[in-house]
Amino acid sequence: MKVKLVITYDGTQYCGWQVQPDKITVQQVVEDALEKVVGQKLKVIGSGRTDAGVHAQGQVAHFETPFENIPAENFYKALNIQLPPDVKVLSSERVDDDFSARRSAKSKTYSYFCYVSRVEKPLKERFSTKLDFQPDIEKMKDAVKVIVGEHDFKCMCSSGSGAKTTVREVYSIEIEQKGEDICFSVTGGGFLYNMVRILVSTLLEVGYGRITKEQVENMLKSGKRIPTIRTLSPKGLCLMKVEY
Amino acid sequence: MKVKLVITYDGTQYCGWQVQPDKITVQQVVEDALEKVVGQKLKVIGSGRTDAGVHAQGQVAHFETPFENIPAENFYKALNIQLPPDVKVLSSERVDDDFSARRSAKSKTYSYFCYVSRVEKPLKERFSTKLDFQPDIEKMKDAVKVIVGEHDFKCMCSSGSGAKTTVREVYSIEIEQKGEDICFSVTGGGFLYNMVRILVSTLLEVGYGRITKEQVENMLKSGKRIPTIRTLSPKGLCLMKVEY
Repeated sequence: MKVKLVITYDGTQYCGWQVQPDKITVQQVVEDALEKVVGQKLKVIGSGRTDAGVHAQGQVAHFETPFENIPAENFYKALNIQLPPDVKVLSSERVDDDFSARRSAKSKTYSYFCYVSRVEKPLKERFSTKLDFQPDIEKMKDAVKVIVGEHDFKCMCSSGSGAKTTVREVYSIEIEQKGEDICFSVTGGGFLYNMVRILVSTLLEVGYGRITKEQVENMLKSGKRIPTIRTLSPKGLCLMKVEY
Repeated sequence: MKVKLVITYDGTQYCGWQVQPDKITVQQVVEDALEKVVGQKLKVIGSGRTDAGVHAQGQVAHFETPFENIPAENFYKALNIQLPPDVKVLSSERVDDDFSARRSAKSKTYSYFCYVSRVEKPLKERFSTKLDFQPDIEKMKDAVKVIVGEHDFKCMCSSGSGAKTTVREVYSIEIEQKGEDICFSVTGGGFLYNMVRILVSTLLEVGYGRITKEQVENMLKSGKRIPTIRTLSPKGLCLMKVEY
């Protein structure tokens, strides 16, 4: 049978989702836990990679097992006993054989969490990124209009992604501020390597008045990133949900 | 001059605020940082103890220094350079010589953070406590009425506090739920050893229908705690602010 898992993790200690030799990854610890549960090595396929240090509230993965003693909807309990405290399975359910966590995904939502403060706050630092100054929220919301839609996002992609095409569709970008906390939520059909972190960084540059909406538009057209736009820290990034 | 500090910390790795021999405490690391800044050992007096594992968004402390080269309002920067990432000073200011972080405190607010889930969530576990089931919020809000006010809180105090009197005044208790997250905010003139954690535990027992509001009232009158009421985990507790 094929089983779908919804997984949440604190990515601080992990070299991302995807298995890599000699590195501790989330996929590896889930596969190790599954091996302890079913007694054989099985491949766990995620909806996509998350980078080193990135968190997840709702990563989705699937695996196939000939082992039908445990009902699919109880797998999460057995896995959680074997998993470390920073990785937990929220739910498990049986899915059709043609379901693929990766290929069947229709959209993904990532949130990027920041806070505006002159001092780093120990109660926030693990899951968000400090901004020294308040950016202009309205300017950023205005710049969102030129990013949403289907574009070649080559200018918002780090090298080494190996993607066949750099065209992606961003469905929506929401920016919400509550007190000193600012959350950027980006939903799209799929994302390039580091794309969300560069996208949010681009919006912040607009919010600080260092670049204009028109420059963002030109950047997308030309495929050349403005060199001052850096890739934000992974710790503020969280894969919120994957829709099918 | 006398300097007032507002301090925030992730208490996970600390044996509480107060200096203890052979243990790592927040007061100790603040005093160590201060020694590096001013070049001499100075005593830092907190508004009160927080227990091992308890966090703070706004602990207040003061110290006296003959060293006036650094303006009081810049002390926080110099201290933060010396402090570890899990303890930071939010602000520093010069105060009158008769100010005492402990004796001048008029009220303190603690919040206790919980979440209702069948699975432990790695992104919440550090700063909140999992509840297996949803408690009845209205029942708890009703029971608040018998706790707010001046009472002998002997029944909500762990042994070993050494307090002269167990009479305290609780000014307000607010209970807010947002999705699966529940926050209890308790403001009072002062609190006994473990009092907030036992108080919230008592409310949860009411919320689960295991004890009644009348039993809480009797408990306060008799001074005898119902034995099933346990002390909740410190990780959900945070000292939010101290008012003067």
